[in-house]
Amino acid sequence: MRLFVRRLFTPAIALLLIVAACSASAQATANPADKEAILTMLNKQADDWNRGDLDAFAKGYKNSPDILFVSQTIRRGYDQMLAGYRKSFPTKDAMGTLTFSNLEVQPLDEHFATVTGRFHLERNAAGGGDLGGHYMLVVEKTPTGWKIVRDATTQDPQAAPAAH
Amino acid sequence: MRLFVRRLFTPAIALLLIVAACSASAQATANPADKEAILTMLNKQADDWNRGDLDAFAKGYKNSPDILFVSQTIRRGYDQMLAGYRKSFPTKDAMGTLTFSNLEVQPLDEHFATVTGRFHLERNAAGGGDLGGHYMLVVEKTPTGWKIVRDATTQDPQAAPAAH
Repeated sequence: MRLFVRRLFTPAIALLLIVAACSASAQATANPADKEAILTMLNKQADDWNRGDLDAFAKGYKNSPDILFVSQTIRRGYDQMLAGYRKSFPTKDAMGTLTFSNLEVQPLDEHFATVTGRFHLERNAAGGGDLGGHYMLVVEKTPTGWKIVRDATTQDPQAAPAAH
Repeated sequence: MRLFVRRLFTPAIALLLIVAACSASAQATANPADKEAILTMLNKQADDWNRGDLDAFAKGYKNSPDILFVSQTIRRGYDQMLAGYRKSFPTKDAMGTLTFSNLEVQPLDEHFATVTGRFHLERNAAGGGDLGGHYMLVVEKTPTGWKIVRDATTQDPQAAPAAH
């Protein structure tokens, strides 16, 4: 009888486990460790930017040809993303001092989340003056940590014409 | 011996099934039916807009207090999203004729995808003139179909100051 019960229930239990495991990934789970890891990655990006180290800053993005960067144009892939940053921010003055504010992490599922926030670039006249705006990121939990896979950035209307 | 094998392998098989089922959701699967359903939803939105039916247009968004709409500001939730559209596009002239172009669907996993594209509003002078820009959406596969859960919209620099 025990064996019969085992035989009957094992597939059912396996199915339940699959359903439970997968439905967990379809719900927004506000995992504090994930949120902390995402914010740490973004804060490191700001620190890298403010040291003038674009290569280190770029490592916040996933090194993939599929990532997308939407602003006044759409750029595709890690290399185009980095080239775009280099073109728009060729000097330390143009990079200025970056701060993020109003950061909000919203999980989509266990592998993906969105981050919304504001950016502000404090720059001298030689750097093009101050710049600010909002952004929305999609971040992915990869084997090497949370990485940005989509970036949509808007600029405040009063800002200088978009070089970003 | 058969029973021993069953006992040994059943948990292993269950685990494999779970891993297989869940790793499928962590990969970008370019399911043509999903892409088709997402594009159909967006095309219906444009049709609803062009009939002047904002309520029908809004149904492309998930009816949730957690959805986010990022442009020059960040709006939160279905009601604020709809109120924002009503305020920015109070008349049929202001709504104009909406077309989407360069649409690209990129799956994140089986529950989520991003859509990038351009929008163009053809409007007469009374409506405020033409308006265009890029957008990035995050769409979610819900029990009632694919719905927009995040929307980040940029406007072309030459456009009139942002009311959107």
